[in-house]
Amino acid sequence: MDLKLPYLLKPYNICHFNDSIFYIGNRKVFPKEKSFYACSNCKEIANALKLMITQGGAPLQVALTSFRYIASEMQKEHIKFNFNNLKKEIMYIVKARVTNTTMKRCVEKILKHYEIRFSDSHYDINTFIKEINKTIDQIESDYNKLYCNMGQYGASLIKDGDKILTTCFAEHTFLLSIYYAKLANKKVKVYVNETRPYFQGIRLTAPSLYELGIDVKIISDSMGSFLMQSGEITHYMSGADLVCMDGSVVNKIGTNQNAICAKYYNIPYTAFSMAPDKSKKSYKDVEMEYRDPKELLMIDNEYIGDKNISAIYPAFDIIREDLVTNIVTNKGIFKPNEIKEVVSWMQ
Amino acid sequence: MDLKLPYLLKPYNICHFNDSIFYIGNRKVFPKEKSFYACSNCKEIANALKLMITQGGAPLQVALTSFRYIASEMQKEHIKFNFNNLKKEIMYIVKARVTNTTMKRCVEKILKHYEIRFSDSHYDINTFIKEINKTIDQIESDYNKLYCNMGQYGASLIKDGDKILTTCFAEHTFLLSIYYAKLANKKVKVYVNETRPYFQGIRLTAPSLYELGIDVKIISDSMGSFLMQSGEITHYMSGADLVCMDGSVVNKIGTNQNAICAKYYNIPYTAFSMAPDKSKKSYKDVEMEYRDPKELLMIDNEYIGDKNISAIYPAFDIIREDLVTNIVTNKGIFKPNEIKEVVSWMQ
Repeated sequence: MDLKLPYLLKPYNICHFNDSIFYIGNRKVFPKEKSFYACSNCKEIANALKLMITQGGAPLQVALTSFRYIASEMQKEHIKFNFNNLKKEIMYIVKARVTNTTMKRCVEKILKHYEIRFSDSHYDINTFIKEINKTIDQIESDYNKLYCNMGQYGASLIKDGDKILTTCFAEHTFLLSIYYAKLANKKVKVYVNETRPYFQGIRLTAPSLYELGIDVKIISDSMGSFLMQSGEITHYMSGADLVCMDGSVVNKIGTNQNAICAKYYNIPYTAFSMAPDKSKKSYKDVEMEYRDPKELLMIDNEYIGDKNISAIYPAFDIIREDLVTNIVTNKGIFKPNEIKEVVSWMQ
Repeated sequence: MDLKLPYLLKPYNICHFNDSIFYIGNRKVFPKEKSFYACSNCKEIANALKLMITQGGAPLQVALTSFRYIASEMQKEHIKFNFNNLKKEIMYIVKARVTNTTMKRCVEKILKHYEIRFSDSHYDINTFIKEINKTIDQIESDYNKLYCNMGQYGASLIKDGDKILTTCFAEHTFLLSIYYAKLANKKVKVYVNETRPYFQGIRLTAPSLYELGIDVKIISDSMGSFLMQSGEITHYMSGADLVCMDGSVVNKIGTNQNAICAKYYNIPYTAFSMAPDKSKKSYKDVEMEYRDPKELLMIDNEYIGDKNISAIYPAFDIIREDLVTNIVTNKGIFKPNEIKEVVSWMQ
């Protein structure tokens, strides 16, 4: 199947490096600007992730490309390969986004793979670069295949005439599902929650769907249940920042209320996740990210209301397993209570 | 009971007129600016309401003050009182907000009261002014008493330690309920939905509660269910633009999803409405307002995303009767199935 990707998901536009500078596609200014945020080292890359310069599945791509970047920098500086330094650098990036356990697991797997062979520092940098680039090439190629597969699984859940609600930016697997459904001549309409406070729905998801030729309409985060009540939504779909072994799903704040309303109106809810996180036995093991309340209270560096009044900004929702109809993984489509059985290639 | 009102609800700040100019407190720029929007006639007042310069319960106050304004203008121009002209002028204002049936019913009641006596044009303007001012004085005084009563009813539903979620700007009755609960030494915390796209929660409700000394925190419209799930919400309360005779409630878009989530987490939902609308036998009789999608897509006259992608903007939600725990009216607190029995002083 064709891996047709919109601008935002093309690997070069997610991140790349050149002449010692690491460039991250700046999702905070897209689509007004198609620009890159420049970083001079891994600490700056980690900081960019904290600033939400990019998000969702992109930090994984940032981490993978960072392996190539660190190795290349070491070569330039003619230093003998030092595995512990590499590990320290890459861990800045992993720690920048605690909820993104896919990135964490993938990076840890790579580190484990190399640790035994390289930690005694007998290898020089040229050997390491050759090996690490081969490993990353393989992982990227594997991911592309998995994205296509998951797009096919997702498309199989979409019926002709479906009107789908989505929140935030569910990336490759959701976008490809919609695209493949369209290729299969299914009529699909997508309603996109604007996704406050960063407006990922307006800025990332809607333009990407539009680029793929999909019929797309934006609504505020408060309008999903209105459309469900009116019969204008037939399926709710979202990405999942992580899936726990109990079948509960963690995703962008606002996903839970839509999942509750979907259940109330007998509408299926499907979440997309490469694989469940075996380290999370249940939703109770999830570490929550709270972000700076000013993100909610200010627009363009100006307070919307009264600066004396504060806000809280939990970044993610936990959607309990009884609200989840399907979880699309790299191994196929599962019910929440079946997710324990999914063994990922990664695990 | 003390009618302690925050800045936004003081009658002068809602609207007043002086030297032929009608001034409406501009809620679209509050609290950044405490300014007034100037109108030179009733068509301009109606247009201001369409532009949402003020909203919620304020259009009723605008309509009442407009009676005084029209009469005063007629006197200035030394014209003989013409009831049909007055009716034409005031109806511009009523028609500006189709969902605001409280304003409509109140205006129609006043018109009906005067129609028989004044429609033959035998009365001069001085007689009319004296009479209409007396009528409006009486209505305003009645309303103030009802606001206090409803604030007391609302406060009786609030328990010590309650954490209340609210949406948009529920005006006198909700604010007084919270205030009276506080006066009765109940500890109350209020979470306010920001209320996209106009941010009434951030701009109107939060500053008004803060002014009344209430512990208040802002959240986005997508965070209510997160707090309910965490046990951080014990009661959901909102205004009601109208209540139908079947006990269903019409209020700001976003109210329905919170009511559904409240039911899901066994949290009561209380709506405040002066009185049900007898002309609306059920939710099916409700005429829906759709607003300009650009309100969602633009901030400060600039598109957030891609200007080629459109939005839909339904302004109100219908909250079906099975989701409503209490309806606070001027006659007391009722269950949705009891609302048919409420006979308002207005009806």
